[in-house]
Amino acid sequence: MTTAINTIWVIFAGTLVFFMEGGFALLEAGLVQAKNTLSIVMKVMADVTLGSLVYGVAGFALMYGISHNGWIGATGFLLQGPIVHVASVPVPVLWFFEMAFAVAAISIVSGAVSERMRFSSYLVFVVVGVLAYSVSGHWVWNPGGWLAKLGMEDFAGSAVVHTFGGFAALAAAWLVGPRQGRFDGVENPFRPSNLPLAFVGTFILWFGWFGFNGGSTLDAFSPLVGPVIVNTMVAAAGGGLSAIAVTRLQQGVYDPTMAINGVLAGLVAITAGCAYVSAPSAVAIGLIAGVLVVLGTAWIEGWKVDDPVGAFPVHGVNGVFGTVAVGLFAEKGGLFYGGGLHLLGVQVLGTVSIALFGFGITALTVGAMRALGVARVTAEEEEEGLDVRLHGQRAYHRGVVVHRSLDVPLAERSAGQ
Amino acid sequence: MTTAINTIWVIFAGTLVFFMEGGFALLEAGLVQAKNTLSIVMKVMADVTLGSLVYGVAGFALMYGISHNGWIGATGFLLQGPIVHVASVPVPVLWFFEMAFAVAAISIVSGAVSERMRFSSYLVFVVVGVLAYSVSGHWVWNPGGWLAKLGMEDFAGSAVVHTFGGFAALAAAWLVGPRQGRFDGVENPFRPSNLPLAFVGTFILWFGWFGFNGGSTLDAFSPLVGPVIVNTMVAAAGGGLSAIAVTRLQQGVYDPTMAINGVLAGLVAITAGCAYVSAPSAVAIGLIAGVLVVLGTAWIEGWKVDDPVGAFPVHGVNGVFGTVAVGLFAEKGGLFYGGGLHLLGVQVLGTVSIALFGFGITALTVGAMRALGVARVTAEEEEEGLDVRLHGQRAYHRGVVVHRSLDVPLAERSAGQ
Amino acid sequence: MTTAINTIWVIFAGTLVFFMEGGFALLEAGLVQAKNTLSIVMKVMADVTLGSLVYGVAGFALMYGISHNGWIGATGFLLQGPIVHVASVPVPVLWFFEMAFAVAAISIVSGAVSERMRFSSYLVFVVVGVLAYSVSGHWVWNPGGWLAKLGMEDFAGSAVVHTFGGFAALAAAWLVGPRQGRFDGVENPFRPSNLPLAFVGTFILWFGWFGFNGGSTLDAFSPLVGPVIVNTMVAAAGGGLSAIAVTRLQQGVYDPTMAINGVLAGLVAITAGCAYVSAPSAVAIGLIAGVLVVLGTAWIEGWKVDDPVGAFPVHGVNGVFGTVAVGLFAEKGGLFYGGGLHLLGVQVLGTVSIALFGFGITALTVGAMRALGVARVTAEEEEEGLDVRLHGQRAYHRGVVVHRSLDVPLAERSAGQ
Repeated sequence: MTTAINTIWVIFAGTLVFFMEGGFALLEAGLVQAKNTLSIVMKVMADVTLGSLVYGVAGFALMYGISHNGWIGATGFLLQGPIVHVASVPVPVLWFFEMAFAVAAISIVSGAVSERMRFSSYLVFVVVGVLAYSVSGHWVWNPGGWLAKLGMEDFAGSAVVHTFGGFAALAAAWLVGPRQGRFDGVENPFRPSNLPLAFVGTFILWFGWFGFNGGSTLDAFSPLVGPVIVNTMVAAAGGGLSAIAVTRLQQGVYDPTMAINGVLAGLVAITAGCAYVSAPSAVAIGLIAGVLVVLGTAWIEGWKVDDPVGAFPVHGVNGVFGTVAVGLFAEKGGLFYGGGLHLLGVQVLGTVSIALFGFGITALTVGAMRALGVARVTAEEEEEGLDVRLHGQRAYHRGVVVHRSLDVPLAERSAGQ
Repeated sequence: MTTAINTIWVIFAGTLVFFMEGGFALLEAGLVQAKNTLSIVMKVMADVTLGSLVYGVAGFALMYGISHNGWIGATGFLLQGPIVHVASVPVPVLWFFEMAFAVAAISIVSGAVSERMRFSSYLVFVVVGVLAYSVSGHWVWNPGGWLAKLGMEDFAGSAVVHTFGGFAALAAAWLVGPRQGRFDGVENPFRPSNLPLAFVGTFILWFGWFGFNGGSTLDAFSPLVGPVIVNTMVAAAGGGLSAIAVTRLQQGVYDPTMAINGVLAGLVAITAGCAYVSAPSAVAIGLIAGVLVVLGTAWIEGWKVDDPVGAFPVHGVNGVFGTVAVGLFAEKGGLFYGGGLHLLGVQVLGTVSIALFGFGITALTVGAMRALGVARVTAEEEEEGLDVRLHGQRAYHRGVVVHRSLDVPLAERSAGQ
Repeated sequence: MTTAINTIWVIFAGTLVFFMEGGFALLEAGLVQAKNTLSIVMKVMADVTLGSLVYGVAGFALMYGISHNGWIGATGFLLQGPIVHVASVPVPVLWFFEMAFAVAAISIVSGAVSERMRFSSYLVFVVVGVLAYSVSGHWVWNPGGWLAKLGMEDFAGSAVVHTFGGFAALAAAWLVGPRQGRFDGVENPFRPSNLPLAFVGTFILWFGWFGFNGGSTLDAFSPLVGPVIVNTMVAAAGGGLSAIAVTRLQQGVYDPTMAINGVLAGLVAITAGCAYVSAPSAVAIGLIAGVLVVLGTAWIEGWKVDDPVGAFPVHGVNGVFGTVAVGLFAEKGGLFYGGGLHLLGVQVLGTVSIALFGFGITALTVGAMRALGVARVTAEEEEEGLDVRLHGQRAYHRGVVVHRSLDVPLAERSAGQ
């Protein structure tokens, strides 16, 4: 009975986390140029098809197999053999839930390399990325992992998923190089092709995040379920609000792209602590995250690293912040609650370790591709668009209805839209 | 055990209701002009970020705190202190579910004021609107509320959510004034920019409504769960069918916008009675709702009130109808089942009270903004579009692929992306 | 208690299956031309509104009423009277779940006849189609059905839903005839209008399929729940991967439309066997399905049958394959597991019977419409687009922001509709 209830809880949550792949795909598709829309969706399709199978063959074992000295799992390949996990749900159900996390971690990277990375090279990255994610995930979420033993607290993965993915995205965006012309002039000439589509993706991601954080109890009977859901909600609200407020103050407009990234930043930042902090702390964490994502976007642009969708400011910066925030705001052990510096130190050590690992493995992989000249498409392919050249199709084929203004000069009409 | 099962039921339902915000945003974004697409999505983002926090700080307390003479809740601010509610789920879980309702009620208004209301003024409305919603909701859903004591039956909120939101939308649309040129000519020159996007929103809303109505049992063990879900389905089907049939008879076409609004009208109308009526009655309620929404659209247009998305015909007209329909169709106490006029009278009193309250508070708020000259954007901003002027971005930046006109050189076309 | 848990499980699953209607609508809308976008969404609206009511009045009874000699149900019309079913959930809950299946089966056809079938004639097809689906569904899923008695195994409907729908789609596409100009030249001039929208639909379908297959246990306590979910996931992954690989080898590109259809093919093919095969078999079934959908697309094109969305290759070909695959891969009774030819024979008999029945009834219906001259719109309506002529609206009214190509004349761009 208990197992059945936990099973439907985790399957409910897992399907929501799975659906986040649709969210990533549509968010990123809306944020890039029209000519590269399909190429980014196809990269997410690679994450979810190839990535899920790689996680089944080996990732799950590396992450949740019996630990070899705290660094790597050594059993459970091909879903055969012992898996170390809470006994609350059957192994296939746990695999489904955890698979969706692995795929999400990799999908963070897809946006950062959009509009110029080769599809075939990205497939290689998916394999390496899923395996690397599984290794550093082992450190924290396998009870035998070295960070778990130090007492690191990362409830649903600000470090395991988002710090890893965000720093992998940073390395990949850096080594694959900026889009042609991205840092030539004073202003960014690249505009999102379809922001309504990006909002479709955002609402799907937000919806899915209730599964991401809520399901991480792996236990429908946990008294944490309610607080986790509430904290997830209010941190997202805080992140969206503060990002909107900051852009209003800075630029005089209520910026939709930053509203999106503020909400996502709040969600990323509360992911580690949603089970450990109070609702007011969750609001505070969200508000800070919304500011950090705006600062982080300017910061990475200052380095001339081209991250078309803001993967690093959202997931990298706020993955680190959210993990560290547990050391500050946790009601048990947090600095602000008299817990001293121990937990804070472990959290910093943990998230820095994962950031370095994610960055390093990705830098080696994409750096090798770069050295071999296979990291990015040709200049001609980039100019014409990856959709036509690599995928043989365009995203949109559409008649244009220009009502009531056939006599209005084109320039005026464009301005009026 | 019971609490755990109820908790996952209500969280499942609550996440669906939350997702309806995405539905509102995309539905409304598709129905307005392209130049105001982001502005409407940003208004929904304001509902869900600012609105949820306001509901946490004070709304939930006003609604479900211990009643002060049946008119207002007086305890439970900041989620601290006693909350009057069924004991079936923990307080944080109840908050999450109810928060999503409050935000939905406010989002009804966002569509009615689209394309011309100032964003900063809308933020003020969100605060006032959430608090006002909570007060009139108290009357019906707090066991100590004056309408609850009279025996009013509003299972999931045809009155509490939809009559309130629909009449607030009417007041706001009226006082903010019509879009420039809306009633100048004989024909409506404003066309939906992206109906497929509106359908994305519609399917999300319909999907979410199963949580809205189903979760309102707050009890997974209730024998009402099955009938509620069935009634929700068949009323929506009836509403869509009759709206399609009416437009076919009136205009000779099967109208997609009315198909959308017919489905939503059926959903709004069954929301009060889904737990109290038979499935054939639910079909009848849906069929009537689909007709009412077409009539209501013509009606509000006759008054020269500009409601770009049909918020009042859908939510106001059918919120009232659905609440009154309980007095007619309810198997216990309904007029058609020999229950006499008592329940019918209470339902009429209740929905009229809520309509007047929603209309009045909103009229005062938006009327004051109008008197101060801050209700709407300038004529220039309206002409150019709120997206560029208030939000600094355009919704769509897209190359146009004009196939079958291959005389345009490819290079030129690609350059246009 | 058990009933309550099963109820929330089946309602969770049923809402996901319901949401698949949104998936069908958006997938198909994205794959057709812009001028026929609304017409296809409206056909799906007809499926879900009219189709659900027909299933309530009679379909459910024909399918799950007490069997008349194994061929047809004879009780339970209007949800009154005995229904033969597992006792795990209340009848209204079962109806909701099964209704969503009936509507899905019919929606398969909507895509195949898109861009040219009359809306009014399609309404007639919906009525006939739902009733016919219910009859052949009776044979397999009613314990008294003749195929059920022979031991046919179709867990979630590769035969009942997808073979039926896919062969009905083939008959309808064949008899309604190809779109004007479809087979005139050497190359297909019809391009998908909005592939990102098609991906929105695809992710919704994939998400919903976890309810489709998972909920078909009708029992949250079944040990099959976990394996069913895992098999659904990995077969979809396999289908997407192999379709991408095949198009890369054949055409030199990673084809997005085939990635979509490969994932859907994998999902269709695992639907019969998800509860009976191992995870590695599920991957194999998915990989084969992804190849079959590419071959099937070429095959149907060779016959000059115009199926704009690939309904037959996805649902017909892989519905048959998935049903037959149970006879090969089932751990109990499958040929590859030493089970001999008995189960394989029954599966072949069953899926062929349903294919012939779905094809035959639809051919009679659409053939009669064709004979009466009402199957398709006029050549003028087809040329101008069904949206404007039958539905009175265009899908998109949008200002176009064409930066960097202001030298393309306006008239030429408009002509590209």
